[in-house]
Amino acid sequence: MYKLPDLCAVTSFKTIGILTCGGDAPGMNAAIRALVRTALNQQMKVYGIERGFTGLMNADMRRLSSPSVSNIIQRGGTILKSNRCEAFKTAEGRRQATAVLRESGIQALICIGGDGTLTGAHLLALESGIPVIGLPCTIDNDIYGSDDSIGFDTAVNTALGAIDRIRDTALSHERLFLVEVMGRNSGLIATQVGIACGAEMILIPEYPIVLESISNTLASNRKAGRGSSGIIILAEGTEPGLTARLAEQLQQHGEEPRICILGHIQRGGSPTGHDRVLASCMGATAISYLLAGYTDVMVGTLGRELIPAPLGDIIGQRKHDPRLYEMVMMLHK
Amino acid sequence: MYKLPDLCAVTSFKTIGILTCGGDAPGMNAAIRALVRTALNQQMKVYGIERGFTGLMNADMRRLSSPSVSNIIQRGGTILKSNRCEAFKTAEGRRQATAVLRESGIQALICIGGDGTLTGAHLLALESGIPVIGLPCTIDNDIYGSDDSIGFDTAVNTALGAIDRIRDTALSHERLFLVEVMGRNSGLIATQVGIACGAEMILIPEYPIVLESISNTLASNRKAGRGSSGIIILAEGTEPGLTARLAEQLQQHGEEPRICILGHIQRGGSPTGHDRVLASCMGATAISYLLAGYTDVMVGTLGRELIPAPLGDIIGQRKHDPRLYEMVMMLHK
Amino acid sequence: MYKLPDLCAVTSFKTIGILTCGGDAPGMNAAIRALVRTALNQQMKVYGIERGFTGLMNADMRRLSSPSVSNIIQRGGTILKSNRCEAFKTAEGRRQATAVLRESGIQALICIGGDGTLTGAHLLALESGIPVIGLPCTIDNDIYGSDDSIGFDTAVNTALGAIDRIRDTALSHERLFLVEVMGRNSGLIATQVGIACGAEMILIPEYPIVLESISNTLASNRKAGRGSSGIIILAEGTEPGLTARLAEQLQQHGEEPRICILGHIQRGGSPTGHDRVLASCMGATAISYLLAGYTDVMVGTLGRELIPAPLGDIIGQRKHDPRLYEMVMMLHK
Amino acid sequence: MYKLPDLCAVTSFKTIGILTCGGDAPGMNAAIRALVRTALNQQMKVYGIERGFTGLMNADMRRLSSPSVSNIIQRGGTILKSNRCEAFKTAEGRRQATAVLRESGIQALICIGGDGTLTGAHLLALESGIPVIGLPCTIDNDIYGSDDSIGFDTAVNTALGAIDRIRDTALSHERLFLVEVMGRNSGLIATQVGIACGAEMILIPEYPIVLESISNTLASNRKAGRGSSGIIILAEGTEPGLTARLAEQLQQHGEEPRICILGHIQRGGSPTGHDRVLASCMGATAISYLLAGYTDVMVGTLGRELIPAPLGDIIGQRKHDPRLYEMVMMLHK
Repeated sequence: MYKLPDLCAVTSFKTIGILTCGGDAPGMNAAIRALVRTALNQQMKVYGIERGFTGLMNADMRRLSSPSVSNIIQRGGTILKSNRCEAFKTAEGRRQATAVLRESGIQALICIGGDGTLTGAHLLALESGIPVIGLPCTIDNDIYGSDDSIGFDTAVNTALGAIDRIRDTALSHERLFLVEVMGRNSGLIATQVGIACGAEMILIPEYPIVLESISNTLASNRKAGRGSSGIIILAEGTEPGLTARLAEQLQQHGEEPRICILGHIQRGGSPTGHDRVLASCMGATAISYLLAGYTDVMVGTLGRELIPAPLGDIIGQRKHDPRLYEMVMMLHK
Repeated sequence: MYKLPDLCAVTSFKTIGILTCGGDAPGMNAAIRALVRTALNQQMKVYGIERGFTGLMNADMRRLSSPSVSNIIQRGGTILKSNRCEAFKTAEGRRQATAVLRESGIQALICIGGDGTLTGAHLLALESGIPVIGLPCTIDNDIYGSDDSIGFDTAVNTALGAIDRIRDTALSHERLFLVEVMGRNSGLIATQVGIACGAEMILIPEYPIVLESISNTLASNRKAGRGSSGIIILAEGTEPGLTARLAEQLQQHGEEPRICILGHIQRGGSPTGHDRVLASCMGATAISYLLAGYTDVMVGTLGRELIPAPLGDIIGQRKHDPRLYEMVMMLHK
Repeated sequence: MYKLPDLCAVTSFKTIGILTCGGDAPGMNAAIRALVRTALNQQMKVYGIERGFTGLMNADMRRLSSPSVSNIIQRGGTILKSNRCEAFKTAEGRRQATAVLRESGIQALICIGGDGTLTGAHLLALESGIPVIGLPCTIDNDIYGSDDSIGFDTAVNTALGAIDRIRDTALSHERLFLVEVMGRNSGLIATQVGIACGAEMILIPEYPIVLESISNTLASNRKAGRGSSGIIILAEGTEPGLTARLAEQLQQHGEEPRICILGHIQRGGSPTGHDRVLASCMGATAISYLLAGYTDVMVGTLGRELIPAPLGDIIGQRKHDPRLYEMVMMLHK
Repeated sequence: MYKLPDLCAVTSFKTIGILTCGGDAPGMNAAIRALVRTALNQQMKVYGIERGFTGLMNADMRRLSSPSVSNIIQRGGTILKSNRCEAFKTAEGRRQATAVLRESGIQALICIGGDGTLTGAHLLALESGIPVIGLPCTIDNDIYGSDDSIGFDTAVNTALGAIDRIRDTALSHERLFLVEVMGRNSGLIATQVGIACGAEMILIPEYPIVLESISNTLASNRKAGRGSSGIIILAEGTEPGLTARLAEQLQQHGEEPRICILGHIQRGGSPTGHDRVLASCMGATAISYLLAGYTDVMVGTLGRELIPAPLGDIIGQRKHDPRLYEMVMMLHK
């Protein structure tokens, strides 16, 4: 349970906008609902902007009422739709967006998304002078400045549900499975999932993959009487085809791994209780921050506290958790 | 609810063996439990043979008591383990198995599995003279001679759970997804899943894939205002890489499909109510058939009836359901 | 997979209405979707009538387009809402409904629901002369004239998911649980669930509960070394408080049962693949029946076939499956 | 992800014992697995004591190997079984237990459970002088001295899954539901669940229930156009029959609430990722604490840190989170 900030209004807003951008994550709808309900309580008008920054540039928006966000807290995806917008990466694109905001009378903007979205939010805040608040919402949980992000807990549990099924086959056939979970730059999903499913091994982008070490571990596990079934969890990483290549190499070392790439199923689905509560608290807090005069910040978490994290400080930073290494190493033993 | 046959014992058995072979399927454990409990009720001894025909050839078996099958009805996989056995495809291999059965005093054998397993069961019955009964247990439901097979309903629901998640992303991003489900020779999973998830299109091995027709359907759906999101369900088929190739071809026609290959998650997991009841009824019926003097038959279903299907008549036959075509065509309209 | 009837149109309809009535069941939305899409394909206009017969009497309806039923196939509940309507049980109420249908230009009506709904549908068909088709949609599966009903398979699986959890506690604490599932007049849910969860005993309204027999079975199970944990599945029956009373009586016989009443969680949730396919096939078939000139019939199933069942023959009839008894008895042994 | 303590061994143990006691909670098996594997890594022998303190008094125990805890991380319940033990509340009972520990050569004991278990652990540590470490494991999360407890996250998600289903019916029938979740002294489950399911209201033992205020809120919600459907979440509290009584009272105020008591389904089931990781980290940490010379402490969490909490300081204390009140009040607005 997070502590919500005391409401300390130094300013007021008549109209605000909300958008979701980048890859969708479970909990986006819960965040939208909390933002809308809290803002309406403060007598603001709320516009939902469709398809992220693309919709912002095209003034593609609609008024959101309290009933319009009823019965969405449990839904995956985003009712505002989302996409990735190249044009917004240019100053020209952001000027166009600024013009739309001014013409529509939108006095502040809440941006829900991952690293790319928060970068756009930061530049827009700087260049337009319009107050902008970000919410970290990505299944990868790779946003620097926040321990947690909306969607991560759900993605971990979704992956786990799939892997518990794979384990049935691994045990029945005494087989080795390479399971690829999401995570380009970050091994957070892989590590959490790997510990929680009792994986034999976890391979993450933060540490190099040493083929000999994998083969040796597998061989010594077998010697220790652990049988030949097993699950290796692998983060997707930045090189395409990593999992297939590793499977081939292991085959040359005498293993017969099967591959399973979990892919997009990790993005969707009904958010967990944790993610719904996190999204609800972050949404309510974003409105508090606006009223307290903040701009160009993200609502982050530090332990069990919600904190304002300046967007300029966090974008482009790599989040690194040395605890990951400890955990992974302990498992390799 | 299936009608169980009246018990009409013309013979008796002191000791029987049970094995699971080939790809695992949810419900194998429920079948084992029903077989063991029913056989024990008839004062038989029951041996569980490990790793399918491989274990049979190696006399790898253990006595099964009533408590040994407690609390397994809800478990995926098979407590008897399974694998594919090349040696059993030879007459020499089957002679070795026959010798093991005779030495162990096993007077009848129940084989749980798919097409390969039932073929082995048939040949063993013919060559050894020992009574053998088969249970159709494969997620593909491609066994001729039985409407239903243990594991199919669970696999459909598992795939559906994954696709419901993918739909969240498809809708949020207005994207097209190609989702590959299991089914080498049979489009049964794909069709059932495709109808149940409201897919835009279903592509199955029974009918040729015509690229132009797919492109045209997608284009006309878009014109009809259905938006650009969508799910195409594709059975894996016999050519490896089919899904990736189709995605490329669609890309050349201006589509931007994302791929999701569900893979092994469809094999595992707790069986559905339907599969647990089916496996329980089939298990009980197999013992009835044995006592009634049957051999070389499979317990099949025809509508809501359980029927004995001679193994010699069903192996190597292709199951073909013209209703599939109707359904798929109706969806294409 | 059901065989859809060949379309053989002898008549045509410009405008039809659809309503859901009585207790909600998973799959109602899938049925609505199939009805709407099939009717639109036949160039009909479709009105969705809100809140069942109540909304019909009050002309509470809206036009349904193809997009209005997008993305609902997987949703529990009913987008048309539902309730129980006392006024419609009177001829006066049905006269008012008939007037609404005529004024709105609705030439045929599809009613989705259970026994009460189908009774209302029958009387309306008789008295108004307007073609009416019924779809059996109730988790209890107690509609005479159809083997299956929309929602039953989902309710069984939902109950099972809950009971698998209770089993964890039953085993950990070696306790006896009395679990009450839905079913006033019918033990179908209880029997299916009881077999699928491996219950020690199943108590259903079709057969009297004999306390001594329960106590003796529990005692002899314990003697047979099955431990003191166990699950007894009980259908709710018609007397309120049955489960609590039974628990008390068992306590007087030295047992310490815990009670769990599953209640309303069995009504909701995303429908299973089976129920989605069943609802889709029944919906498409209802439109075929209309066009073929049928009225006052329900779309029923007999084995794997869809059949028209005259409403006059089925309402008020008690469905009785002697197979239940066999199954339950087998378990008691 | 929690930070594990650096291993700083000041002492060593040849043999330790592990037990689970009190109400079972998801994650107990994950904790057992982590304890066993970590202890074996430190060359200890490990005994699993059956049925909590009862088994301890009766020397009911077995040696645990690494394979004996394979494939249990995802299982609900406890492989060591559990119960509540009155005899251990007496000094005589604890003397008997001490004698068993000494005779069996068990040099330290890990106790997994809730408030009662930790109280027993504390008294045993004091009176016997044998090192004892506790792990907080209860779905209620009401252990003072730890933000989190093993099983809480799973119970919240299980309740949520059930309530999402009830919401389908609430919306379809525009009905009010009173849903009772677990929590005798603590509203933590109710509050987390209530926020996450978007409940209209949350009633918890920490604050008095004022009937007028409930009626007024419901009436004003209806006026505000929120419709008449709704979910009120209620913690079970200490008075039996609270929910039924409240329903009656609301009926006298013109409401027609339906009741749903979730009960024991909240205890079981496969633990969430969060609970599996928490249990794994706490298990590994308990062994570190033992080796570092701690006794009479519990492994607690403070934010994202694992901390040793002296058992004497925490037992009998009431955990109170004023944030609950804020959250609940915000919802009442």
